[in-house]
Parts: sequence; structure tokens; C-alpha cells
Amino acid sequence: MKNITSPTLLLDENICKINIHAMANKAKEHDLDFKPHMKTHQSATIGHWLRDADIEATTVSSVKMAQYFARHGWNDITIAFPCNIRQIDDLNELAANISLTILVNKTDVAKALDKKLQSPVSAYIEIDSGSARSGLPSDDIREIRSVIEVINTSNNITWAGLYSHPGHSYACRSKQQIEAVHHAVIRQFKQLKDELSQSYHDFEVCIGDTPCCSIGDTFGPVDAISPGNFVFYDLMQQQIGSCKFGDIAVAMACPIVDKYESHNQLIIQGGAIHFSKEFMKTNDTTHFGLVAERNDNSWKPVEPYSYVTKLSQEHGVVSCSAKLFQNYDIGDMVTVLPVHSCLTANLMSGYQTIGGEQISMMK
Amino acid sequence: MKNITSPTLLLDENICKINIHAMANKAKEHDLDFKPHMKTHQSATIGHWLRDADIEATTVSSVKMAQYFARHGWNDITIAFPCNIRQIDDLNELAANISLTILVNKTDVAKALDKKLQSPVSAYIEIDSGSARSGLPSDDIREIRSVIEVINTSNNITWAGLYSHPGHSYACRSKQQIEAVHHAVIRQFKQLKDELSQSYHDFEVCIGDTPCCSIGDTFGPVDAISPGNFVFYDLMQQQIGSCKFGDIAVAMACPIVDKYESHNQLIIQGGAIHFSKEFMKTNDTTHFGLVAERNDNSWKPVEPYSYVTKLSQEHGVVSCSAKLFQNYDIGDMVTVLPVHSCLTANLMSGYQTIGGEQISMMK
Repeated sequence: MKNITSPTLLLDENICKINIHAMANKAKEHDLDFKPHMKTHQSATIGHWLRDADIEATTVSSVKMAQYFARHGWNDITIAFPCNIRQIDDLNELAANISLTILVNKTDVAKALDKKLQSPVSAYIEIDSGSARSGLPSDDIREIRSVIEVINTSNNITWAGLYSHPGHSYACRSKQQIEAVHHAVIRQFKQLKDELSQSYHDFEVCIGDTPCCSIGDTFGPVDAISPGNFVFYDLMQQQIGSCKFGDIAVAMACPIVDKYESHNQLIIQGGAIHFSKEFMKTNDTTHFGLVAERNDNSWKPVEPYSYVTKLSQEHGVVSCSAKLFQNYDIGDMVTVLPVHSCLTANLMSGYQTIGGEQISMMK
Repeated sequence: MKNITSPTLLLDENICKINIHAMANKAKEHDLDFKPHMKTHQSATIGHWLRDADIEATTVSSVKMAQYFARHGWNDITIAFPCNIRQIDDLNELAANISLTILVNKTDVAKALDKKLQSPVSAYIEIDSGSARSGLPSDDIREIRSVIEVINTSNNITWAGLYSHPGHSYACRSKQQIEAVHHAVIRQFKQLKDELSQSYHDFEVCIGDTPCCSIGDTFGPVDAISPGNFVFYDLMQQQIGSCKFGDIAVAMACPIVDKYESHNQLIIQGGAIHFSKEFMKTNDTTHFGLVAERNDNSWKPVEPYSYVTKLSQEHGVVSCSAKLFQNYDIGDMVTVLPVHSCLTANLMSGYQTIGGEQISMMK
């Protein structure tokens, strides 16, 4: 880290590739299509690492991200976000060039799209499997059938099946809790798929959260998975129970610019514009990151735990153990595991590998 | 907003210029130097609007931001962040070309800098006037004198005075509370300045928070101010008591992509990567933004108040009044006042004025 002068997002290429291959192998074992979500890393280079694991289809969260990955050679892209019909021109351009799948949750949206689409697209209907964000409830069979019917009578939309991000798995705090959420999601989709199979064929079920995809052991009615965060994992995933500390592939390196012994606080360049203001609570401490050090080819939390407890735009305050405080001087770097790697990566707009290589992201 | 297809940060140029001239006039009335902080807008264009108000000196939060504004013609720049000595090469390059002021809070930092600086810089000592972030306590006269002494014996550093960001003003919830914080800060600096004036001359006191600079009525020992947020203000400043809703110069325009009547919820494209995850509490609602509409040349909250109550990476959930829910359809745009305009602007990386002009920011 000798040459690092400002906040830098370090990427352990080796751990990232292990995470990619572990999830790809799990998908193969369970006979699942694997369409990893790119929103976490937003990088063509990491996309190449996914290709190296024989992955050909991908998931993104915006039209802009679809355009970026289409430019970087991805031909099968799902935009896992309720279709923004104001972006019809961009959707038409994408659909003319790649195999595009979108989310359509309303009959009105299906009708509006059908009028304006100039090339064929596939469409999932999103199911709210418990996260209370977007999607139709899995027991609202009447509405789900209505949307399917409109799609099936459209000229340019093919119904692809059902999509869900079971985001309520983020409330879990153990493997057992994740398994319980996962099995409940599986049961919902089993019932819904059985019901719809009486009328329709050739549709698939795709689910996309990292906790369930990391921990789930049976996938029953699920045909495809699209987790994203697993490439890096983070403190939140470790707390949820999706991963171990040693699976976390990114860490922020921040210069220490000041220190105050009266409070055992290090002041770092590393603020809300680097970490994001995503926070979590560990025991009784609300924090934005955990101080770690490299050890045996991974980052390990420094004990006793020291956290980034305060963030303003450019400043971070690390509340230290007395031991840690003595070990670090102004001008040193401190390494911090992020609470939520997706938001940190989005802000940092690039990575530096352990080997010193620069990896760019979508701008 | 007909041509807007994705989340867009709208800027009311007129309100922004009114905010700029109001603060510039206040500085003149109180005979204060005015060195506005650029971290909020990060834009050369808005910098020009500040120049139009006869402003020649500016404040930034990082070396990168100093480089950007130096490239855009600013010759007197203060980096209001504890000096990051790992960036000595960049500091030397800046100091060779512009009049550069930095913060030096420790004798060791002053010594390290003096060895490596190749051009003259000015240095403020940062005072922690109550925010408990960085800076020396105002009553630690011995340490403050030690740093001044090291600076005064250095070759390339000139002691400029005392700097403080009284960030504890952000805990205020009324003009009266802000006035109380402001007067306490003024008292601290009066005492400290009197004490130091026995030994030193020609140094100044600069303070930089938007609440105190907006509401403060007397400035006593203060010679210069460097607020930043005032160019845009935001919901947090309105809640603190620094501004009225009508003073807020930016709002997020977000496409509505889905809606669920059972919960009176609109789903918008507008998530943590657009707003930031900065939240606030209004009455009993924790939220990330407040729905507003244009009315009489400013944004006014729609009544009864409707908030963005949930954010994931790309999604926002607007919890509506039943009336608002009926007024908006999928494909419409909704306008949201941000909680913290600095972090939202940093994420959005550009503005669209009410007149439709695109304004770029530092990348």
C-alpha cells in the first residue's frame, strides 16, 4: 500500500474468483441457470472473470448498466427492475442488439410497451416473495394471470416466467434463519408454479438474493439464480450468515490524517462519499465499517474490534482499542471492511487489486 | 420534465443564485472574508456563479477537489481537511501554482511537511469547537502554541490562523438553538484569539458551517466564513432551522415504475445510488426525501407529506397519502427534496436546470 495516497478500494482477485466459482459450481450442482447480477461490481473486467466460469447470461439493475455490459460483449441481459417505460428508446435499441429480458408487473405496462416496442423482448413478472418492495404477491393469481394474458397477446413480448428478489433475507442473523426464509420462498414458488403450470408451459422461476443463494440447499421449483453481492460479500452478509470474514473480497484502504488520544480516535480520509452511509449494528455499536488487517491471504478483523463510528462527507472517525491506537500513526493506512460492498463500490468507481492492478468500472 | 427518462437532479438556478448573493451580502455586511466551500456542488459552472458575486477565495475538502478548481481558474484555495501527508507530491504541485492553505493540527505533521514542501503554503490550525470530529480543543493553548511555534520556524509554512467547522450545529432544531451554538463558538474564539493575540499578530479565524453562517447575527472574533451547503440547502437544513423550504435549490426527479394500492406505495427509480442513504426523522417517519411539486417558482412539499421511506440500490419506495397515490401513474415523474444535498449531488454527478441546461461536476 506504499503508493496509495487517497481512499482506495482494494480487491482480492483470488477471493473474488473463488466466490464466483463456488456460486457457479453450486448452480451447476443444482441444475440451475446462473445469471449473476452485475450491480455489485459494475465492472467489465470482473464480468470477464464470470465468463471464465462459463457464464453467458447476466442480470443488471438499470438500462444504463445493460448498455454498459452490452458494449462489453454480453448478449443475454435481464434488467431486474420494474420496467421504466420512459426509457423505451433505449430499450428498443438494446432489444435490437441483444437478447433482453425485462420485468413487467402490470397489465398497463405490458400494453404500453407492446405499442412502442420495435424488437422482441422477454418479460418476467416480478413476485413479492416477502420483501415488500416491488412485485405482485404470489397468491394474487388473478392479477398474475392477467399480466400473462396481456403479454401473451402482445406482438413483441414473450413471457419468460417469474422473478423475485427475496430481500427480506437481509433481516436474517444466522444460517438457520436464512434457510427458513429460503424454504418459505421455495414453498411459495412451488405452489405458484404448480398452479400456473396447469395453463402455461416453458416458463422459469428466477430468484436473486445472495443470502438464500449462498445458504439454500434445495431449490425445488427454482430454475435460475441471479445473486450479485456474492462476488465480494461484505460485513452485512457476514452478519446475516451468508459468508465468513475470509470470503470478503474488498476492503477500503484509507490514509490516517489525524489522531486524538483522549478519545482513542483515528481520523481517516474515508467518508460518506467513499463508504456510503449504510450502517449496521454489531453488539451495541452502530458503525460504517470494521478495521481489518491482511493475514494468511485474506482480511481478518483486528481484535478487539475497532469500527468506523462516524462519517461526514470526507472524514471518517475510527473508534479504536487503546492497542490499535498505539499501532497506527498519522500518515499510515488503515484497512476497513465495508458494511455494504455494492454501495461502496458504486461510490469508489474502481478497484486496485492486491497485486496493484487498476480495475475500472462503469461511469 | 417531458424529456427526463431516468433519475435527474434538478437545479433551480435562480434560487441557487439568490442563496449565493444572500450569503455574499451577509459576509460583506459583517466585514467577513467569504471563502465558500465547493464540496456541496463540486461544479465549475456554479463556481462561476460564485465569482459573479465577487468571490475570489474558496474552500474544498480534498486535494482532488483543489486540483479541479485550480484547473478552473481558482487561485486561492483552502483544503479544509486535516493535511494528508501521503499526498505531498500533489500538494507541492498545487502550491507551486496557486495560493494554497491547508490544515495542520499536529507538530509532527508540521515537521514532516516542512521537510518535503518545495513551495510556500499557508496553514490553519483546526479547532474542535464542539463537533468532536477533528481539531484541537480551543482550551488546549499549550498544544496550539506548540503547533504555531513549529510552523513559525518552518521554511515553507506560514501560519494563517484558526479554522473550525462547528458541525454540532447540525443537532439544532430551531433558529434559537443555532444562535446558542453560534454564540458559544464565538465566545470560544474570542477567548482563544485574545490569548493568542498576546504573542501573535496577523492571523485570522475562519468558521464554516451553514447553520451558524445562515443564522448567526454577530461574528465577533471571526474574520472569514466558509459554508458550503447554503448554495442548495436541503431538508436537513430546513429541519435544523437554517432555511425555509423555498430556499432549497435542488430536487430529484424520479420516474415512477410501479405502484401498489394495498400499501399506497409508489415505486420509483431513485435509490441509494442516487439519493445516498442519509436519512432523517420528521415527526415519527424515518425517510430519505419528501415529495414536492413546483409552485410559484420553488418546490413546495405536497400535503399531506409523502416520503421516500425505503431505499435499495436502484429502487425507492414512496409511502403516499391516498390522494397523492391517485394523482400519480406509472410513467409519471415524481419530484423529491433530498435529505442531504451534498451527498445526493456527489452521487448524481451533474444537474439539469429548470431551463433544461446540463451542468457538469467534477468526476
